[in-house]
Amino acid sequence: MKNVRVKQEVKVFAPATVANVICGYDILGFALDRPGDEVIMRLKDEPGVEIVNIEGDDGLLPRRAEKNTVSASVQNYLKQIGQPDLGIEIELFKQMPIGSGLGSSAASTVAGLFAINQLLGEKLTRKELLPLALKGEELACGYPHADNVAPSLLGGFTLVRSYEPLDVIHLPVPPDLHCAVVFPHVDVPTRDARDMIRKNVPLKGAVKQWGNIAGLVSGLFMNDYDLISRSMEDVLIEPTRAILIPEFYEMRKIAMEVGALSFGISGSGPSVFSFTKSAELAAEVAEAIKYQLNQNEIECNTYISSVNTEGPKVL
Amino acid sequence: MKNVRVKQEVKVFAPATVANVICGYDILGFALDRPGDEVIMRLKDEPGVEIVNIEGDDGLLPRRAEKNTVSASVQNYLKQIGQPDLGIEIELFKQMPIGSGLGSSAASTVAGLFAINQLLGEKLTRKELLPLALKGEELACGYPHADNVAPSLLGGFTLVRSYEPLDVIHLPVPPDLHCAVVFPHVDVPTRDARDMIRKNVPLKGAVKQWGNIAGLVSGLFMNDYDLISRSMEDVLIEPTRAILIPEFYEMRKIAMEVGALSFGISGSGPSVFSFTKSAELAAEVAEAIKYQLNQNEIECNTYISSVNTEGPKVL
Repeated sequence: MKNVRVKQEVKVFAPATVANVICGYDILGFALDRPGDEVIMRLKDEPGVEIVNIEGDDGLLPRRAEKNTVSASVQNYLKQIGQPDLGIEIELFKQMPIGSGLGSSAASTVAGLFAINQLLGEKLTRKELLPLALKGEELACGYPHADNVAPSLLGGFTLVRSYEPLDVIHLPVPPDLHCAVVFPHVDVPTRDARDMIRKNVPLKGAVKQWGNIAGLVSGLFMNDYDLISRSMEDVLIEPTRAILIPEFYEMRKIAMEVGALSFGISGSGPSVFSFTKSAELAAEVAEAIKYQLNQNEIECNTYISSVNTEGPKVL
Repeated sequence: MKNVRVKQEVKVFAPATVANVICGYDILGFALDRPGDEVIMRLKDEPGVEIVNIEGDDGLLPRRAEKNTVSASVQNYLKQIGQPDLGIEIELFKQMPIGSGLGSSAASTVAGLFAINQLLGEKLTRKELLPLALKGEELACGYPHADNVAPSLLGGFTLVRSYEPLDVIHLPVPPDLHCAVVFPHVDVPTRDARDMIRKNVPLKGAVKQWGNIAGLVSGLFMNDYDLISRSMEDVLIEPTRAILIPEFYEMRKIAMEVGALSFGISGSGPSVFSFTKSAELAAEVAEAIKYQLNQNEIECNTYISSVNTEGPKVL
């Protein structure tokens, strides 16, 4: 409780995120500078949480307070702090694609929770908001995964070591690390992408995977970009998911030729991302991938970003 | 090639090692201060590598140069440096139990390679000795695993991120970390312990495992003993291997009650080890485990050690 002054209105931003990060399936994620979602939240006299406006979702998101992850998360927050009857009005500005594999629902959920916490004078710490954000993810995706909400809420790289109990560790961000994100306009619903994954994996592949995640974490601590690059390989999940993403292997070839440190799927896709050692190189990688997609008549959005260490912020 | 002065005789020590380190199956290991093996090596006039003396092995180890991992590794070394006909005489002093799960063959192999390299003026770096040490492990264990030879040769914690190409990363050693090792006098041949392990594992368990290895690596970099402790859990391999180790779960209970950070199997067992935050606590843990084993009429050796950051050394 850093500040108990209650505001009348706040406007906040919460970042998109890249989950899995190639070799960290279900445990690793990081936040982007852009894109992200914005929420305006204000107190109202009548009790109850209400969504009064959503822009940029093409009508896809539920408007009913109990069904929408932003308002439902605010309701859960109010219950937790013992003020369930407070009157709250919400406007959500989706400034990122839905179903892109960039943590769209996580960004909305985090924006909502960060906004209500700001509005009411930071009654909870960011770490205390995390379980509420997980509930929001469960509502939106059917599965309370933390690898998007944790980095969106806390910024930087987050490692979800364990769910029971929830144990989230902040990893360092090498200073030169930049990211190119490309969202091809094709449909890959998260649930389908999850369902395709096998329940059992070969031990040999799993050993390779935990060698790689250990290498990636070491590389982040050591600012060792070569080690980061060598470690970013996924032999277990990617081969299955890549099938759903047109031009996946061609995009990889192009990204690595241009000089990316890595190339892989963001979350469950269809977005893909590369790490690079500069913003300029990230822009070149994104351009080269975009050209390849356009040649194959696939539209896309591209985003250039550093790793966002700040998380959500008041605008 | 730091020093081209050839010596007539050297005496060296190479340390025992703990492989797997609970959540790092097949990728992680660390070196102990004790026990370890000693090798005396000298030049002789007649060509050929010869074992002239082995002590402490109860006659278990092969005496023929091509079959013994020490002499065979020396032969490979001589071939590699282009002096296959050099005359070398070897004495091996096994000062640690064979088949204990403490990297007995790795310590001998590393002692042999370190000795010949010292004898001939350090013609190769330690990292260049590593592939030769892997060949030695293949001869001794039927499987060229690096998780014992890497830490024995390089000291500290070593992460074998990949075998092809071989990629070994040195991890930092938190200053207060100490280790209690207990070797119960029961037989668990490495090959059997390997064969028991399933070829496929549940993805859910694998995700837990790579969350834990990422947590452990983070804990080593951050000197975060609580995180190290929380991360040292193995849901995949240990349940199978623990069956072969009498009193395993009772020993764990006792070690954790005394105040250990962790308890688990060293390599494929039957040795077990605990991390602690002091040498005194490590001694208490070892004593408590020994008492439990003795109560059940099982003899054991105990070793108290810090994490050995030096690796092999000239005596």
